[in-house]
Amino acid sequence: MNFIQKMKMSIASRKSFLCVGLDPDPRLMPPGISLNEFILGIVKSTSDLACSYKINFAFFESMGEKGFAHLKFARDCVPEDIPVIADAKRADIGNTSRQYAEAIFSVMGFDAITVNPYMGHDSLLPFISYTDRGVFILCRTSNPGSSDFQDVLVSNGTDKIPLYQLVSKKAAEWNQNGNIGLVVGATWPEEIKQIRNQNPDMPLLIPGVGAQGGSIELVAQNAIGPNSKMAIINSSRSIIHASCENDFGIRARLKAEEMRNQINFFSSR
Amino acid sequence: MNFIQKMKMSIASRKSFLCVGLDPDPRLMPPGISLNEFILGIVKSTSDLACSYKINFAFFESMGEKGFAHLKFARDCVPEDIPVIADAKRADIGNTSRQYAEAIFSVMGFDAITVNPYMGHDSLLPFISYTDRGVFILCRTSNPGSSDFQDVLVSNGTDKIPLYQLVSKKAAEWNQNGNIGLVVGATWPEEIKQIRNQNPDMPLLIPGVGAQGGSIELVAQNAIGPNSKMAIINSSRSIIHASCENDFGIRARLKAEEMRNQINFFSSR
Repeated sequence: MNFIQKMKMSIASRKSFLCVGLDPDPRLMPPGISLNEFILGIVKSTSDLACSYKINFAFFESMGEKGFAHLKFARDCVPEDIPVIADAKRADIGNTSRQYAEAIFSVMGFDAITVNPYMGHDSLLPFISYTDRGVFILCRTSNPGSSDFQDVLVSNGTDKIPLYQLVSKKAAEWNQNGNIGLVVGATWPEEIKQIRNQNPDMPLLIPGVGAQGGSIELVAQNAIGPNSKMAIINSSRSIIHASCENDFGIRARLKAEEMRNQINFFSSR
Repeated sequence: MNFIQKMKMSIASRKSFLCVGLDPDPRLMPPGISLNEFILGIVKSTSDLACSYKINFAFFESMGEKGFAHLKFARDCVPEDIPVIADAKRADIGNTSRQYAEAIFSVMGFDAITVNPYMGHDSLLPFISYTDRGVFILCRTSNPGSSDFQDVLVSNGTDKIPLYQLVSKKAAEWNQNGNIGLVVGATWPEEIKQIRNQNPDMPLLIPGVGAQGGSIELVAQNAIGPNSKMAIINSSRSIIHASCENDFGIRARLKAEEMRNQINFFSSR
Protein backbone atom coordinates (compact mmCIF):
# COMPACT_ATOMS: atom_id res chain seq x y z
CA MET A 1 0.00 0.00 0.00
CA ASN A 2 1.47 3.35 -0.96
CA PHE A 3 1.36 6.61 0.99
CA ILE A 4 -1.64 8.05 -0.84
CA GLN A 5 -3.75 4.93 -0.29
CA LYS A 6 -2.70 4.72 3.35
CA MET A 7 -3.53 8.40 3.88
CA LYS A 8 -6.94 8.10 2.20
CA MET A 9 -7.87 5.09 4.32
CA SER A 10 -6.73 6.75 7.50
CA ILE A 11 -8.72 9.91 6.75
CA ALA A 12 -11.82 7.87 5.91
CA SER A 13 -11.66 5.39 8.78
CA ARG A 14 -11.06 8.08 11.41
CA LYS A 15 -13.32 10.67 9.75
CA SER A 16 -10.49 13.07 10.38
CA PHE A 17 -8.32 15.53 8.48
CA LEU A 18 -6.40 16.39 11.63
CA CYS A 19 -2.67 15.75 11.80
CA VAL A 20 -1.04 15.93 15.22
CA GLY A 21 2.41 17.48 15.21
CA LEU A 22 4.87 15.85 17.57
CA ASP A 23 7.09 18.84 18.39
CA PRO A 24 7.67 18.23 22.10
CA ASP A 25 9.02 21.09 24.17
CA PRO A 26 10.51 19.56 27.36
CA ARG A 27 9.78 22.78 29.27
CA LEU A 28 6.05 22.26 28.67
CA MET A 29 5.94 18.60 29.68
CA PRO A 30 4.62 17.54 33.08
CA PRO A 31 7.36 17.14 35.69
CA GLY A 32 8.79 13.67 36.27
CA ILE A 33 7.81 12.17 32.94
CA SER A 34 10.28 10.96 30.31
CA LEU A 35 10.12 12.18 26.73
CA ASN A 36 9.23 8.72 25.44
CA GLU A 37 6.42 8.38 28.00
CA PHE A 38 5.13 11.78 26.95
CA ILE A 39 5.16 10.95 23.24
CA LEU A 40 3.54 7.57 23.80
CA GLY A 41 0.91 9.21 25.99
CA ILE A 42 0.05 11.74 23.27
CA VAL A 43 -0.12 9.08 20.55
CA LYS A 44 -2.24 6.69 22.62
CA SER A 45 -4.65 9.50 23.53
CA THR A 46 -5.13 10.71 19.97
CA SER A 47 -4.60 7.79 17.56
CA ASP A 48 -8.32 7.33 16.82
CA LEU A 49 -8.65 11.06 16.07
CA ALA A 50 -5.51 11.85 14.05
CA CYS A 51 -5.37 10.90 10.36
CA SER A 52 -1.60 11.25 10.62
CA TYR A 53 1.28 12.44 12.76
CA LYS A 54 3.97 14.89 11.71
CA ILE A 55 7.33 14.76 13.45
CA ASN A 56 9.43 17.90 13.49
CA PHE A 57 13.08 16.89 13.25
CA ALA A 58 14.49 20.10 14.77
CA PHE A 59 12.99 19.36 18.17
CA PHE A 60 14.87 16.05 18.27
CA GLU A 61 18.12 17.20 16.66
CA SER A 62 18.53 19.88 19.32
CA MET A 63 18.74 17.05 21.91
CA GLY A 64 22.08 15.95 20.53
CA GLU A 65 23.10 12.30 20.50
CA LYS A 66 20.00 10.97 22.26
CA GLY A 67 17.70 12.78 19.81
CA PHE A 68 17.84 10.06 17.17
CA ALA A 69 16.59 7.33 19.52
CA HIS A 70 13.68 9.52 20.65
CA LEU A 71 12.84 10.37 17.04
CA LYS A 72 12.84 6.71 16.10
CA PHE A 73 10.72 5.90 19.15
CA ALA A 74 8.21 8.58 18.17
CA ARG A 75 8.01 7.27 14.62
CA ASP A 76 7.65 3.66 15.74
CA CYS A 77 5.01 4.15 18.44
CA VAL A 78 2.43 5.33 15.89
CA PRO A 79 0.00 2.53 14.93
CA GLU A 80 0.88 0.90 11.59
CA ASP A 81 -2.16 2.12 9.67
CA ILE A 82 -1.43 5.81 10.37
CA PRO A 83 1.01 7.61 8.05
CA VAL A 84 3.84 9.48 9.74
CA ILE A 85 5.30 12.55 8.02
CA ALA A 86 8.94 13.59 8.53
CA ASP A 87 8.85 17.37 8.79
CA ALA A 88 12.48 17.83 7.85
CA LYS A 89 12.34 20.34 4.94
CA ARG A 90 15.33 18.75 3.24
CA ALA A 91 16.73 19.09 -0.30
CA ASP A 92 20.26 19.27 -1.70
CA ILE A 93 22.11 18.27 -4.87
CA GLY A 94 21.04 14.83 -6.13
CA ASN A 95 23.92 12.89 -4.64
CA THR A 96 23.15 14.36 -1.21
CA SER A 97 19.35 14.21 -1.45
CA ARG A 98 19.73 10.49 -2.08
CA GLN A 99 21.39 10.18 1.32
CA TYR A 100 18.63 12.18 3.01
CA ALA A 101 15.96 10.06 1.31
CA GLU A 102 17.70 6.90 2.47
CA ALA A 103 17.94 8.25 6.03
CA ILE A 104 14.29 9.23 6.27
CA PHE A 105 12.55 6.57 4.18
CA SER A 106 14.79 3.49 4.50
CA VAL A 107 16.60 3.89 7.83
CA MET A 108 13.80 5.59 9.78
CA GLY A 109 10.79 4.29 7.86
CA PHE A 110 8.78 7.48 7.47
CA ASP A 111 5.78 7.46 5.10
CA ALA A 112 6.34 11.00 3.80
CA ILE A 113 8.65 13.98 4.03
CA THR A 114 8.52 17.75 3.62
CA VAL A 115 11.06 19.16 1.12
CA ASN A 116 12.18 22.63 0.01
CA PRO A 117 11.83 23.48 -3.72
CA TYR A 118 14.50 26.21 -4.02
CA MET A 119 17.15 23.91 -5.55
CA GLY A 120 14.80 22.57 -8.24
CA HIS A 121 13.69 19.27 -9.74
CA ASP A 122 16.87 17.19 -9.48
CA SER A 123 17.15 18.02 -5.77
CA LEU A 124 13.67 16.50 -5.20
CA LEU A 125 13.87 13.51 -7.55
CA PRO A 126 15.62 11.19 -5.08
CA PHE A 127 12.64 11.63 -2.73
CA ILE A 128 9.99 11.38 -5.45
CA SER A 129 11.65 8.18 -6.71
CA TYR A 130 10.41 6.37 -3.62
CA THR A 131 7.05 5.79 -5.31
CA ASP A 132 5.38 4.36 -2.20
CA ARG A 133 6.21 7.42 -0.08
CA GLY A 134 4.78 10.94 -0.08
CA VAL A 135 6.73 14.13 -0.83
CA PHE A 136 5.28 17.44 0.37
CA ILE A 137 6.90 20.39 -1.39
CA LEU A 138 6.91 23.72 0.46
CA CYS A 139 4.67 26.05 -1.52
CA ARG A 140 3.26 28.89 0.63
CA THR A 141 4.54 28.54 4.17
CA SER A 142 2.69 29.73 7.27
CA ASN A 143 5.31 32.17 8.59
CA PRO A 144 5.21 35.96 8.01
CA GLY A 145 8.54 36.01 6.11
CA SER A 146 7.16 33.62 3.49
CA SER A 147 6.19 36.77 1.54
CA ASP A 148 9.85 37.68 0.99
CA PHE A 149 10.25 35.28 -1.92
CA GLN A 150 7.11 33.14 -2.25
CA ASP A 151 4.98 36.18 -3.14
CA VAL A 152 7.27 37.88 -5.64
CA LEU A 153 5.80 38.01 -9.14
CA VAL A 154 7.52 35.85 -11.71
CA SER A 155 7.10 35.65 -15.46
CA ASN A 156 4.98 32.73 -16.59
CA GLY A 157 4.64 33.00 -20.37
CA THR A 158 3.00 36.39 -20.86
CA ASP A 159 1.47 36.32 -17.38
CA LYS A 160 2.86 37.15 -14.00
CA ILE A 161 2.22 34.87 -11.07
CA PRO A 162 3.58 34.70 -7.53
CA LEU A 163 6.50 32.32 -7.11
CA TYR A 164 4.47 29.95 -4.89
CA GLN A 165 2.06 29.41 -7.80
CA LEU A 166 4.96 28.52 -10.06
CA VAL A 167 6.03 25.98 -7.43
CA SER A 168 2.49 24.59 -7.42
CA LYS A 169 2.48 24.32 -11.24
CA LYS A 170 5.89 22.64 -11.33
CA ALA A 171 4.85 20.23 -8.59
CA ALA A 172 1.92 19.14 -10.77
CA GLU A 173 4.26 18.69 -13.77
CA TRP A 174 6.72 16.65 -11.71
CA ASN A 175 4.02 14.40 -10.27
CA GLN A 176 4.60 11.42 -12.60
CA ASN A 177 4.53 9.01 -9.66
CA GLY A 178 1.40 10.55 -8.12
CA ASN A 179 3.11 10.94 -4.76
CA ILE A 180 3.65 14.71 -4.53
CA GLY A 181 1.77 17.00 -2.17
CA LEU A 182 2.11 20.68 -1.25
CA VAL A 183 2.63 22.51 2.03
CA VAL A 184 0.38 25.56 2.36
CA GLY A 185 0.11 27.50 5.61
CA ALA A 186 -3.26 27.82 7.32
CA THR A 187 -2.47 31.51 7.72
CA TRP A 188 -3.08 32.04 3.96
CA PRO A 189 -6.68 30.90 3.30
CA GLU A 190 -6.99 32.67 -0.08
CA GLU A 191 -3.82 31.01 -1.30
CA ILE A 192 -5.16 27.65 -0.13
CA LYS A 193 -8.27 28.25 -2.24
CA GLN A 194 -6.22 29.05 -5.36
CA ILE A 195 -3.88 26.12 -4.93
CA ARG A 196 -6.79 23.78 -4.26
CA ASN A 197 -8.59 24.97 -7.39
CA GLN A 198 -5.45 24.30 -9.45
CA ASN A 199 -4.84 20.89 -7.85
CA PRO A 200 -8.12 19.32 -6.73
CA ASP A 201 -6.60 15.89 -6.03
CA MET A 202 -3.26 16.84 -4.60
CA PRO A 203 -2.62 16.21 -0.91
CA LEU A 204 -2.24 19.51 0.93
CA LEU A 205 -0.36 19.56 4.21
CA ILE A 206 -1.61 22.60 6.09
CA PRO A 207 0.22 23.67 9.24
CA GLY A 208 -0.55 26.80 11.19
CA VAL A 209 -3.94 26.32 12.85
CA GLY A 210 -3.83 26.65 16.63
CA ALA A 211 -0.80 28.43 18.06
CA GLN A 212 0.07 30.10 14.74
CA GLY A 213 -3.44 31.53 14.40
CA GLY A 214 -4.79 30.07 11.14
CA SER A 215 -8.59 29.84 10.97
CA ILE A 216 -9.95 26.28 10.99
CA GLU A 217 -13.17 27.52 9.38
CA LEU A 218 -11.48 29.06 6.33
CA VAL A 219 -8.94 26.26 5.96
CA ALA A 220 -11.60 23.56 6.05
CA GLN A 221 -13.84 25.43 3.60
CA ASN A 222 -11.05 26.14 1.16
CA ALA A 223 -9.04 22.92 1.27
CA ILE A 224 -11.77 20.28 1.52
CA GLY A 225 -14.54 19.80 -0.99
CA PRO A 226 -16.67 17.05 -2.52
CA ASN A 227 -13.81 16.12 -4.87
CA SER A 228 -10.94 17.23 -2.64
CA LYS A 229 -10.51 14.93 0.29
CA MET A 230 -6.74 14.98 0.69
CA ALA A 231 -6.21 17.72 3.23
CA ILE A 232 -3.97 17.12 6.22
CA ILE A 233 -4.42 19.93 8.72
CA ASN A 234 -1.70 20.04 11.31
CA SER A 235 -1.69 21.37 14.83
CA SER A 236 1.21 20.76 17.19
CA ARG A 237 1.62 22.88 20.30
CA SER A 238 -2.06 23.59 20.97
CA ILE A 239 -2.76 19.84 21.16
CA ILE A 240 0.32 18.21 22.67
CA HIS A 241 0.89 20.97 25.19
CA ALA A 242 -2.79 21.67 25.95
CA SER A 243 -1.82 20.91 29.54
CA CYS A 244 1.55 21.01 31.30
CA GLU A 245 0.24 18.71 34.05
CA ASN A 246 -0.32 14.98 34.34
CA ASP A 247 -3.66 15.29 32.54
CA PHE A 248 -1.76 16.12 29.30
CA GLY A 249 -3.11 12.97 27.59
CA ILE A 250 -6.79 13.60 28.18
CA ARG A 251 -6.39 17.33 27.52
CA ALA A 252 -4.59 16.59 24.23
CA ARG A 253 -7.40 14.20 23.33
CA LEU A 254 -10.10 16.77 24.10
CA LYS A 255 -8.33 19.42 22.04
CA ALA A 256 -7.76 17.01 19.13
CA GLU A 257 -11.39 15.93 19.20
CA GLU A 258 -12.55 19.54 19.22
CA MET A 259 -10.33 20.42 16.25
CA ARG A 260 -11.22 17.31 14.29
CA ASN A 261 -14.93 18.04 14.78
CA GLN A 262 -14.53 21.71 13.86
CA ILE A 263 -12.75 20.78 10.63
CA ASN A 264 -15.50 18.30 9.75
CA PHE A 265 -18.23 20.79 10.63
CA PHE A 266 -16.89 23.56 8.42
CA SER A 267 -15.86 21.30 5.54
CA SER A 268 -19.30 19.73 5.21
CA ARG A 269 -21.34 22.94 5.27
CA MET B 1 36.75 35.73 17.76
CA ASN B 2 33.79 35.56 15.41
CA PHE B 3 33.40 33.41 12.30
CA ILE B 4 34.47 36.11 9.84
CA GLN B 5 37.67 36.88 11.74
CA LYS B 6 38.46 33.19 12.17
CA MET B 7 37.86 32.55 8.46
CA LYS B 8 40.03 35.51 7.38
CA MET B 9 42.88 34.38 9.61
CA SER B 10 42.65 30.80 8.39
CA ILE B 11 42.66 31.88 4.73
CA ALA B 12 45.64 34.16 5.32
CA SER B 13 47.74 31.84 7.46
CA ARG B 14 47.26 28.85 5.14
CA LYS B 15 47.35 30.92 1.94
CA SER B 16 44.36 28.88 0.91
CA PHE B 17 40.78 29.40 -0.28
CA LEU B 18 40.22 25.65 -0.43
CA CYS B 19 37.52 24.08 1.71
CA VAL B 20 37.59 20.30 2.06
CA GLY B 21 34.15 18.69 2.13
CA LEU B 22 33.83 15.78 4.51
CA ASP B 23 31.16 13.73 2.70
CA PRO B 24 32.52 10.24 3.27
CA ASP B 25 31.12 7.43 1.14
CA PRO B 26 31.90 4.15 2.98
CA ARG B 27 32.00 2.28 -0.34
CA LEU B 28 34.97 4.40 -1.43
CA MET B 29 36.97 4.03 1.78
CA PRO B 30 39.92 1.63 1.98
CA PRO B 31 38.98 -1.78 3.36
CA GLY B 32 39.47 -2.41 7.08
CA ILE B 33 39.46 1.19 8.20
CA SER B 34 36.84 2.72 10.49
CA LEU B 35 34.94 5.85 9.51
CA ASN B 36 36.53 7.83 12.35
CA GLU B 37 40.02 6.72 11.34
CA PHE B 38 39.25 7.73 7.76
CA ILE B 39 37.98 11.19 8.74
CA LEU B 40 40.90 11.79 11.08
CA GLY B 41 43.31 10.66 8.35
CA ILE B 42 41.82 13.14 5.87
CA VAL B 43 41.88 16.02 8.34
CA LYS B 44 45.45 15.32 9.49
CA SER B 45 46.65 15.12 5.88
CA THR B 46 45.04 18.37 4.78
CA SER B 47 44.78 20.71 7.78
CA ASP B 48 47.65 22.95 6.67
CA LEU B 49 46.08 23.26 3.20
CA ALA B 50 42.37 23.71 3.92
CA CYS B 51 41.07 27.11 5.05
CA SER B 52 37.98 25.31 6.32
CA TYR B 53 36.06 22.04 6.34
CA LYS B 54 32.46 21.57 5.31
CA ILE B 55 30.54 18.64 6.75
CA ASN B 56 27.56 17.34 4.80
CA PHE B 57 24.92 16.19 7.28
CA ALA B 58 23.12 13.83 4.89
CA PHE B 59 26.07 11.47 4.72
CA PHE B 60 25.94 11.04 8.50
CA GLU B 61 22.16 11.03 8.93
CA SER B 62 21.87 8.09 6.55
CA MET B 63 23.94 6.04 9.03
CA GLY B 64 21.12 6.11 11.54
CA GLU B 65 21.74 6.21 15.27
CA LYS B 66 25.54 6.04 15.04
CA GLY B 67 25.64 8.94 12.58
CA PHE B 68 25.51 11.63 15.24
CA ALA B 69 28.62 10.38 17.05
CA HIS B 70 30.57 10.24 13.77
CA LEU B 71 29.37 13.73 12.85
CA LYS B 72 30.46 15.08 16.23
CA PHE B 73 33.80 13.29 15.89
CA ALA B 74 34.34 14.84 12.45
CA ARG B 75 33.53 18.31 13.75
CA ASP B 76 35.75 17.91 16.81
CA CYS B 77 38.84 16.49 15.08
CA VAL B 78 39.36 19.69 13.08
CA PRO B 79 42.05 21.93 14.64
CA GLU B 80 40.59 24.80 16.67
CA ASP B 81 41.74 27.60 14.40
CA ILE B 82 39.97 26.20 11.32
CA PRO B 83 36.27 27.05 10.87
CA VAL B 84 33.92 24.13 10.26
CA ILE B 85 30.78 24.67 8.20
CA ALA B 86 27.62 22.59 8.76
CA ASP B 87 26.26 21.90 5.29
CA ALA B 88 22.74 21.20 6.47
CA LYS B 89 20.61 23.55 4.31
CA ARG B 90 18.11 24.08 7.10
CA ALA B 91 15.33 26.66 7.59
CA ASP B 92 11.83 26.48 9.01
CA ILE B 93 9.38 28.72 10.87
CA GLY B 94 11.10 30.77 13.59
CA ASN B 95 10.18 28.52 16.48
CA THR B 96 11.67 25.52 14.64
CA SER B 97 14.72 27.29 13.18
CA ARG B 98 15.63 28.22 16.74
CA GLN B 99 15.87 24.51 17.54
CA TYR B 100 18.01 23.84 14.45
CA ALA B 101 20.31 26.74 15.33
CA GLU B 102 20.66 25.40 18.86
CA ALA B 103 21.44 21.90 17.55
CA ILE B 104 24.10 23.05 15.11
CA PHE B 105 25.70 26.00 16.88
CA SER B 106 25.27 25.21 20.60
CA VAL B 107 25.06 21.41 20.81
CA MET B 108 27.46 20.56 17.99
CA GLY B 109 29.61 23.69 18.00
CA PHE B 110 29.80 24.44 14.27
CA ASP B 111 31.21 27.80 13.16
CA ALA B 112 28.78 28.29 10.28
CA ILE B 113 25.78 26.73 8.54
CA THR B 114 24.19 26.65 5.09
CA VAL B 115 20.50 27.69 5.03
CA ASN B 116 17.72 27.78 2.44
CA PRO B 117 16.08 31.17 1.75
CA TYR B 118 12.68 30.00 0.42
CA MET B 119 10.83 30.59 3.71
CA GLY B 120 12.12 34.16 4.08
CA HIS B 121 13.72 36.40 6.66
CA ASP B 122 12.11 35.16 9.87
CA SER B 123 13.12 31.58 9.04
CA LEU B 124 16.79 32.68 8.91
CA LEU B 125 16.84 35.13 11.83
CA PRO B 126 17.41 32.49 14.53
CA PHE B 127 20.64 31.53 12.73
CA ILE B 128 21.74 35.11 11.99
CA SER B 129 21.15 35.99 15.65
CA TYR B 130 24.22 33.95 16.60
CA THR B 131 26.43 36.91 15.81
CA ASP B 132 29.70 34.98 16.21
CA ARG B 133 28.68 32.30 13.68
CA GLY B 134 28.41 32.42 9.90
CA VAL B 135 25.23 31.88 7.87
CA PHE B 136 25.57 30.95 4.20
CA ILE B 137 22.31 31.48 2.32
CA LEU B 138 21.74 29.35 -0.80
CA CYS B 139 21.77 31.74 -3.74
CA ARG B 140 22.67 30.00 -7.02
CA THR B 141 23.27 26.31 -6.37
CA SER B 142 25.59 24.10 -8.40
CA ASN B 143 23.05 21.51 -9.57
CA PRO B 144 21.36 21.58 -13.02
CA GLY B 145 17.83 21.95 -11.54
CA SER B 146 18.80 25.18 -9.83
CA SER B 147 17.48 26.91 -12.97
CA ASP B 148 13.92 25.81 -12.22
CA PHE B 149 13.34 28.60 -9.71
CA GLN B 150 16.61 30.46 -9.09
CA ASP B 151 16.71 31.71 -12.69
CA VAL B 152 13.12 32.83 -13.10
CA LEU B 153 12.78 36.55 -13.65
CA VAL B 154 11.15 38.46 -10.82
CA SER B 155 9.99 42.04 -10.59
CA ASN B 156 12.41 44.35 -8.80
CA GLY B 157 10.97 47.85 -8.96
CA THR B 158 10.69 48.50 -12.69
CA ASP B 159 13.45 45.99 -13.48
CA LYS B 160 13.43 42.27 -13.83
CA ILE B 161 16.13 40.19 -12.21
CA PRO B 162 16.60 36.45 -11.69
CA LEU B 163 15.38 35.20 -8.32
CA TYR B 164 18.91 34.34 -7.18
CA GLN B 165 19.85 38.02 -7.53
CA LEU B 166 16.91 39.01 -5.37
CA VAL B 167 18.19 36.55 -2.78
CA SER B 168 21.62 38.16 -3.02
CA LYS B 169 20.10 41.65 -2.56
CA LYS B 170 18.00 40.56 0.41
CA ALA B 171 20.99 38.84 2.00
CA ALA B 172 22.87 42.15 1.86
CA GLU B 173 19.87 43.96 3.43
CA TRP B 174 19.60 41.38 6.20
CA ASN B 175 23.31 41.48 7.00
CA GLN B 176 23.04 43.72 10.08
CA ASN B 177 25.34 41.44 12.06
CA GLY B 178 27.89 41.13 9.27
CA ASN B 179 27.78 37.34 9.45
CA ILE B 180 25.92 36.40 6.24
CA GLY B 181 27.50 34.73 3.24
CA LEU B 182 26.13 33.26 0.02
CA VAL B 183 26.36 29.83 -1.61
CA VAL B 184 27.07 30.05 -5.33
CA GLY B 185 27.89 26.96 -7.38
CA ALA B 186 31.22 26.74 -9.20
CA THR B 187 29.25 25.55 -12.23
CA TRP B 188 27.94 29.13 -12.75
CA PRO B 189 31.03 31.35 -13.19
CA GLU B 190 29.12 34.29 -14.74
CA GLU B 191 26.71 34.34 -11.82
CA ILE B 192 29.67 34.26 -9.42
CA LYS B 193 31.04 37.36 -11.15
CA GLN B 194 27.73 39.23 -10.84
CA ILE B 195 27.20 38.28 -7.23
CA ARG B 196 30.80 39.18 -6.38
CA ASN B 197 30.43 42.59 -8.03
CA GLN B 198 27.30 43.25 -5.99
CA ASN B 199 28.88 42.02 -2.74
CA PRO B 200 32.66 42.56 -2.77
CA ASP B 201 33.09 41.76 0.93
CA MET B 202 30.62 38.98 1.40
CA PRO B 203 31.92 35.47 2.04
CA LEU B 204 31.05 33.21 -0.88
CA LEU B 205 30.90 29.48 -0.31
CA ILE B 206 31.48 27.88 -3.70
CA PRO B 207 30.89 24.14 -4.07
CA GLY B 208 31.07 22.27 -7.35
CA VAL B 209 34.71 22.21 -8.43
CA GLY B 210 36.10 18.72 -8.89
CA ALA B 211 33.53 15.93 -9.29
CA GLN B 212 30.75 18.38 -10.25
CA GLY B 213 32.85 19.92 -13.01
CA GLY B 214 33.16 23.61 -12.08
CA SER B 215 36.27 25.34 -13.47
CA ILE B 216 38.82 26.34 -10.84
CA GLU B 217 40.23 28.96 -13.21
CA LEU B 218 36.95 30.80 -13.73
CA VAL B 219 35.88 30.48 -10.10
CA ALA B 220 39.16 31.85 -8.80
CA GLN B 221 39.18 34.73 -11.30
CA ASN B 222 35.58 35.70 -10.62
CA ALA B 223 35.31 35.20 -6.86
CA ILE B 224 38.69 36.44 -5.65
CA GLY B 225 40.08 39.91 -6.23
CA PRO B 226 42.25 42.52 -4.57
CA ASN B 227 39.32 43.60 -2.37
CA SER B 228 37.50 40.28 -2.29
CA LYS B 229 39.34 37.77 -0.18
CA MET B 230 36.43 35.86 1.33
CA ALA B 231 35.96 32.98 -1.07
CA ILE B 232 35.66 29.45 0.24
CA ILE B 233 35.96 27.01 -2.62
CA ASN B 234 34.81 23.54 -1.72
CA SER B 235 35.75 20.18 -3.11
CA SER B 236 34.65 16.94 -1.48
CA ARG B 237 34.78 13.67 -3.39
CA SER B 238 37.76 14.47 -5.62
CA ILE B 239 39.90 15.10 -2.54
CA ILE B 240 38.72 12.70 0.16
CA HIS B 241 38.21 9.80 -2.24
CA ALA B 242 41.23 10.55 -4.47
CA SER B 243 42.27 7.00 -3.59
CA CYS B 244 40.25 4.04 -2.33
CA GLU B 245 43.40 2.38 -0.98
CA ASN B 246 45.50 2.85 2.14
CA ASP B 247 47.30 5.78 0.56
CA PHE B 248 44.07 7.84 0.79
CA GLY B 249 45.71 10.34 3.18
CA ILE B 250 48.68 11.23 1.02
CA ARG B 251 46.57 11.17 -2.16
CA ALA B 252 44.04 13.50 -0.55
CA ARG B 253 46.89 15.78 0.48
CA LEU B 254 48.36 15.84 -3.02
CA LYS B 255 44.98 16.62 -4.57
CA ALA B 256 44.25 19.34 -1.98
CA GLU B 257 47.67 20.89 -2.54
CA GLU B 258 47.14 20.88 -6.30
CA MET B 259 43.73 22.54 -5.99
CA ARG B 260 44.91 25.10 -3.44
CA ASN B 261 47.80 26.05 -5.70
CA GLN B 262 45.61 26.24 -8.80
CA ILE B 263 43.17 28.55 -7.03
CA ASN B 264 46.03 30.79 -5.90
CA PHE B 265 47.60 30.78 -9.35
CA PHE B 266 44.45 31.84 -11.16
CA SER B 267 43.31 34.33 -8.53
CA SER B 268 46.57 36.26 -8.53
CA ARG B 269 46.92 36.65 -12.31
